[in-house]
Amino acid sequence: MLISQSSLRTFTKNIFLAIGCSDEHATLAADVLIKADMRGIDSHGVARLTGYVRLWEKGRINTNPNIQIVNETPSTATVDGGAGLGLVVAPFAMKIAIEKAKQYGSGWVAIRNSNHFGIAGYHALMAVEQDMIGYAMTNASPLVAPTFSNERMLGTNPMCYGFPAGKYPPVVVDMATSAAANGKLEIAISTTTQVPEGWIQDASGNYTTDPHALKSGGSLLPLGSDREHGSHKGFGLSAVVDILSGVLSGANYGPWVPPFVSFLEPPTDPVGTGIGHFVGAMRVDGFRPVDEFRDNMDNWIARFKSASTIDPSQKVIIPGEPELEAETDRKQNGIPLVDAVVNDLNELEEKLKVSSLN
Amino acid sequence: MLISQSSLRTFTKNIFLAIGCSDEHATLAADVLIKADMRGIDSHGVARLTGYVRLWEKGRINTNPNIQIVNETPSTATVDGGAGLGLVVAPFAMKIAIEKAKQYGSGWVAIRNSNHFGIAGYHALMAVEQDMIGYAMTNASPLVAPTFSNERMLGTNPMCYGFPAGKYPPVVVDMATSAAANGKLEIAISTTTQVPEGWIQDASGNYTTDPHALKSGGSLLPLGSDREHGSHKGFGLSAVVDILSGVLSGANYGPWVPPFVSFLEPPTDPVGTGIGHFVGAMRVDGFRPVDEFRDNMDNWIARFKSASTIDPSQKVIIPGEPELEAETDRKQNGIPLVDAVVNDLNELEEKLKVSSLN
Repeated sequence: MLISQSSLRTFTKNIFLAIGCSDEHATLAADVLIKADMRGIDSHGVARLTGYVRLWEKGRINTNPNIQIVNETPSTATVDGGAGLGLVVAPFAMKIAIEKAKQYGSGWVAIRNSNHFGIAGYHALMAVEQDMIGYAMTNASPLVAPTFSNERMLGTNPMCYGFPAGKYPPVVVDMATSAAANGKLEIAISTTTQVPEGWIQDASGNYTTDPHALKSGGSLLPLGSDREHGSHKGFGLSAVVDILSGVLSGANYGPWVPPFVSFLEPPTDPVGTGIGHFVGAMRVDGFRPVDEFRDNMDNWIARFKSASTIDPSQKVIIPGEPELEAETDRKQNGIPLVDAVVNDLNELEEKLKVSSLN
Repeated sequence: MLISQSSLRTFTKNIFLAIGCSDEHATLAADVLIKADMRGIDSHGVARLTGYVRLWEKGRINTNPNIQIVNETPSTATVDGGAGLGLVVAPFAMKIAIEKAKQYGSGWVAIRNSNHFGIAGYHALMAVEQDMIGYAMTNASPLVAPTFSNERMLGTNPMCYGFPAGKYPPVVVDMATSAAANGKLEIAISTTTQVPEGWIQDASGNYTTDPHALKSGGSLLPLGSDREHGSHKGFGLSAVVDILSGVLSGANYGPWVPPFVSFLEPPTDPVGTGIGHFVGAMRVDGFRPVDEFRDNMDNWIARFKSASTIDPSQKVIIPGEPELEAETDRKQNGIPLVDAVVNDLNELEEKLKVSSLN
């Protein structure tokens, strides 16, 4: 099913209104989710809407949160998200980071007591639009085992950097720190295909190509897959995300991060509140004139796009390019929704008595 | 050959004095190199001393540099390293970052017109000693091909994060963004062993296990090794390091980064000056009280150390632990130097007329 951005946006906003969000918050939360669908990151768009609603039903998301700064210096702050939607809390925090950057050159905000914040790229791009370098990361439900372990200790913990360019679109590096994002595994399960070796291990720590292994006690592997190929680096990056998002903010961290799925209960011995994010913004002109930077970014991009190729039909892909191509396509042609998601949305429509999707 | 830290330090300092460094600069440069040897990162210690001297002989390193701030805001700055030793320029920049963090919560410094800065961990740890989170990265001689390319476009571009802890030592994630560091390849060459598939490709872009392939037009692969296992993420991280270190500072970037080896000439069409670094410091108490953070870091570390293991004899390794173990061992037992390095140092001794190594 193909649906227009505006229809899906209205529907999504209505769902958030129905669970008690203010008009402003519902608009913003819908914007974050639709951005994921537009950019082709389908696992983080409206496919998750049911998940957010279920967490709200369980009382784990407060749709009228008291979001506040609990500590700050000129260029840093910690925000308590009041158990609100990460989709709302993270942009609130990024606005603070941007304001601090305007005044002091950079702004860095650690966030606790939040929930899943959608795609990291949304938040980083808020800074990019202001001629700043944007930075966003979050910890997440434990699914990834450190090198040498078979225990789920870390989320897929994405980190994102966004850089403005000139005639080219921004460079956006937005990546899970695991070898494969969980969304890819879900696709393999729904299409009953095997996954490559190096993505997951079973409960005993053996490599497996069976995507169901994750649900029977297995775990995702860090970027690098095994020690010999640098999985300790993927683990290290994931640790950085966990420490900045969780330990620094006062959120939960490691295996204590509350699960996104509502059928799993959060740990009964929390080490902080909710999940954590970390966002930042640096003014480009805090380092060099914006025009110079844009020109050099264009030169960087052009040079990498023209790097010699192994297979002439496959050029080097600049980080952020595939997402932008999806956005251009979907603006024109609409957003494709798979049946499972359409069914979920129809159920939400009935349950929350909102206007139909079409 | 085993040598004491203090003997190696004195010898190294004398070499830097002999090529024209001030006493202060020679002491600092020696400290950075010896720190690498002490931490077991032998590829970045005195093994490189000959390399620095050769660059100085070619006029590519100025041992009496004019290091200066060329642009700044309260929490950001750009430093021109005056073509000095990165071993001196990067600590200068990190001091600025730390001072800014003391005043404004965080400090971020992009550095251009510099040279190889040793181990990133040295610079990040300067901040950690001040109850700050430290951040350090550098671009480097092009050896790594982006995903889908067989062209050397990026350095092994390391990034480092350091976090203070309490009763445990700091967590230090210090990693090349390639699947394997160049030093590991050099070891394979010197011991005539093959390398694992996924580290390098030959000039045509085919996987190879021959470590010599790099010297015959091949390239290192980004962390992730291939597209299926996330090499685009390794490429993305390397791009982040290159843009922050090179494009943001006004240094060279991508394939224009001047080579560390003196027998290769720098590109004749530079896009900036020298190589670039990027360092940062954030005050922990800009986010939460230091004691709380330390306690939670200890809890984080203890929990990860006790994660369930696949092989009971191999526990989870906390980032920074192996380096600290090496440091403890070498403090006690001295620094092991391989013959090739001893020969290099003896040659330097003769050439520069410094006192003998022993």
